[in-house]
Amino acid sequence: MDRILIIYFKMKSILSEEKVKKSHTPSPASQKNRELVCELCRNFYALGWASGTGGGISIKDGDFIYMAPSGVQKERLSPEDIFVLDADGNIVEEPGRGLKLSQCSPLFMHAYKMRNAGAVLHSHSVNAATATMLFDKQFRIKNMEMQKGVEGYGAFDTLEVPIIDNTAYECELADSLGEAIQNNPKTHAILVRRHGVYVWGKDWKQAKTHAECYDYLFEAAGRMKQLGIALET
Amino acid sequence: MDRILIIYFKMKSILSEEKVKKSHTPSPASQKNRELVCELCRNFYALGWASGTGGGISIKDGDFIYMAPSGVQKERLSPEDIFVLDADGNIVEEPGRGLKLSQCSPLFMHAYKMRNAGAVLHSHSVNAATATMLFDKQFRIKNMEMQKGVEGYGAFDTLEVPIIDNTAYECELADSLGEAIQNNPKTHAILVRRHGVYVWGKDWKQAKTHAECYDYLFEAAGRMKQLGIALET
Amino acid sequence: MDRILIIYFKMKSILSEEKVKKSHTPSPASQKNRELVCELCRNFYALGWASGTGGGISIKDGDFIYMAPSGVQKERLSPEDIFVLDADGNIVEEPGRGLKLSQCSPLFMHAYKMRNAGAVLHSHSVNAATATMLFDKQFRIKNMEMQKGVEGYGAFDTLEVPIIDNTAYECELADSLGEAIQNNPKTHAILVRRHGVYVWGKDWKQAKTHAECYDYLFEAAGRMKQLGIALET
Amino acid sequence: MDRILIIYFKMKSILSEEKVKKSHTPSPASQKNRELVCELCRNFYALGWASGTGGGISIKDGDFIYMAPSGVQKERLSPEDIFVLDADGNIVEEPGRGLKLSQCSPLFMHAYKMRNAGAVLHSHSVNAATATMLFDKQFRIKNMEMQKGVEGYGAFDTLEVPIIDNTAYECELADSLGEAIQNNPKTHAILVRRHGVYVWGKDWKQAKTHAECYDYLFEAAGRMKQLGIALET
Repeated sequence: MDRILIIYFKMKSILSEEKVKKSHTPSPASQKNRELVCELCRNFYALGWASGTGGGISIKDGDFIYMAPSGVQKERLSPEDIFVLDADGNIVEEPGRGLKLSQCSPLFMHAYKMRNAGAVLHSHSVNAATATMLFDKQFRIKNMEMQKGVEGYGAFDTLEVPIIDNTAYECELADSLGEAIQNNPKTHAILVRRHGVYVWGKDWKQAKTHAECYDYLFEAAGRMKQLGIALET
Repeated sequence: MDRILIIYFKMKSILSEEKVKKSHTPSPASQKNRELVCELCRNFYALGWASGTGGGISIKDGDFIYMAPSGVQKERLSPEDIFVLDADGNIVEEPGRGLKLSQCSPLFMHAYKMRNAGAVLHSHSVNAATATMLFDKQFRIKNMEMQKGVEGYGAFDTLEVPIIDNTAYECELADSLGEAIQNNPKTHAILVRRHGVYVWGKDWKQAKTHAECYDYLFEAAGRMKQLGIALET
Repeated sequence: MDRILIIYFKMKSILSEEKVKKSHTPSPASQKNRELVCELCRNFYALGWASGTGGGISIKDGDFIYMAPSGVQKERLSPEDIFVLDADGNIVEEPGRGLKLSQCSPLFMHAYKMRNAGAVLHSHSVNAATATMLFDKQFRIKNMEMQKGVEGYGAFDTLEVPIIDNTAYECELADSLGEAIQNNPKTHAILVRRHGVYVWGKDWKQAKTHAECYDYLFEAAGRMKQLGIALET
Repeated sequence: MDRILIIYFKMKSILSEEKVKKSHTPSPASQKNRELVCELCRNFYALGWASGTGGGISIKDGDFIYMAPSGVQKERLSPEDIFVLDADGNIVEEPGRGLKLSQCSPLFMHAYKMRNAGAVLHSHSVNAATATMLFDKQFRIKNMEMQKGVEGYGAFDTLEVPIIDNTAYECELADSLGEAIQNNPKTHAILVRRHGVYVWGKDWKQAKTHAECYDYLFEAAGRMKQLGIALET
């Protein structure tokens, strides 16, 4: 009986490998996407969004998602460190060498599935974390030109970003993040209390633009508070 | 009648192309100017003036104006992404590939025409946006050495920058910006409420110098306010 | 008698050189570690942790410790400027050219010996120095996600960093630093009043991650104080 | 008579050229020093000390002083843009192309002559300008570790930097700067109200270290003020 089980598992493993190989014909874009993830991580480190191994970005290209590993220095990634996932979040290529899939993975997948995102990023910017302390349930600002950088908002709108409470483990955020996405159809970002922000866009360019505009608004809100300027005027 | 109209428009189009071709003998400086626009955009991104695809710069060289496209990541421009306009603001060369002329174009043209500027830039600096919230109709500061970096001002003058209200669309700013330029013959910059600043100079070096000096003054004003130091002493 | 003394000291010197040579078979990793120290110093200078020749880092690899010299511009180090020490803190290789061993050396050695650290760094960040002015005996913060970047802490813990008083000479800090390490078994950092912070980790990657997370927390604490947000909620 | 005058002036010009040529045997260090001035200017621009063509540095090597020109973008200097002066401040080599000697020149010369400096720099840091607004006649701070980076100061001293009032023209500062140097034998820096700071050292390395330490102290003072922490405790 044991031998049969072993054979069963071996076969299962072979079949599942086959399945993966079949599903994954590495596109010529693969290397380019891996390099892009690394380049953007360096960019975000320079902006202060990815210090202390925090933050990260994932990019979807066709059927595949490119994602930085967990708990590593984001500014020092190499293309061969990147995980490749299919559209359901299953690992298609992994870097090995002890590198682990990002704990943000289920959170990123929510934005991919619920919003058809083309890229999702997570920032540990101090601006974002501080912004969550100025409000209770949602960050609110209005009449700022940079709101126009976020799809669906004009310069004279009120822009809101839901704030969800932090959890002990990143993966535990998935449910409340999913719920917040569901309940706030207009938003392209979810703030996490005293933690940071998840931002997405239809492609990596829009996700980056959204992230820079949101971060600007978080920074401006902090400055306005310090200067005694009302945020909602 | 329709055929005549079609022929008329075809001819007009051919004639206007001819006119453009005639007027535009690409100077050897063209590539250099395109590279300069890209380089300055990277510089401004690093300074925080062009995050989220915001901000930009245009440079005039002889009869031609070099301008970055609209809504793209300013720190990632290539020379072939740049628009070339004639002195009246008509497009002479366009990059294609879906790139659009900057919405700032009519605003830039005001400075070129009304002030004979050699370069105009638009910054989305948080310092500039915040400065517009400290004053009603115009930013005012005095007795700052960096005022000397702005042509026409001494260290003991009062430097004023008009603040115009923001509009839903960038192009709608053109009239009030033109009016503000008209009414403030001494200024080299116009602030836009909760938005940013337009700055110009006789050439790209002076425009950049002006922009850096104004931004310094906006930043200093914010710090002084936080430290409880009167801005006009 | 003098000659005998001279001969004695010469022999002692020869023997000690022998001992050093014997103990030190330069590993192939030596050059790599030297370059890493230089690279990290440049990184820390860019972060503002090593201005004015302040701060620094040392890395342990196997039996040897690589350490930047004292009082030099940390962002301009070359691999040949680095000191190599054995596990007891004795100099094994020195750069000569008047370069002196870092005054932090005995402090670094405490972390190596008492905590089995793989790397120790010292930051002169303004954030760290300012954080020491917000508290009496220890820096305290809680409920911040970035706490998770420091080994042993969760997002909902209270993170404490002991603050020791500064001394006239860096080497005089050794005793109180050792005592603080002894009395605070959970900490990976010791703040020094109006001075900076010592941070360590099991290897250079963890030490750097710890340092970036602590610095983030110091910065966030300052901002929260300015914004009127309680640090321990 | 006119011809005689012309001949006289031609001869004078030839003789003076001879004198210059005689006095100036370009040392092999010349190119290196020119490059160093440019490199440091880029460094200072990145630190925010030389925006808007402000600030600068001059270095003395043997009998010659290397100085950046006036009113140019300090981050874009080339070695051939640098002026070379003799120890009395006379121009020995000039770049031509319309470039003018820095208006800081007589101020730099004070530090060279009165303090036997090896390098003098001028920073337009916002930190420095803001620090001059927190005090009347002199900036004062104490008990900061970074004071040790300034020669002659310990961590528990009170560090003072004289503040002189600004003048309409930079050259008019020379007298009061000289007086302040005379009256404050311990200082290595003079602050100029709402303007910036002049800093020197025995060589370029010490001048740069001094400048970074002073700027750190100016920045820390501003933060302490904002946080309600007394500067002199």
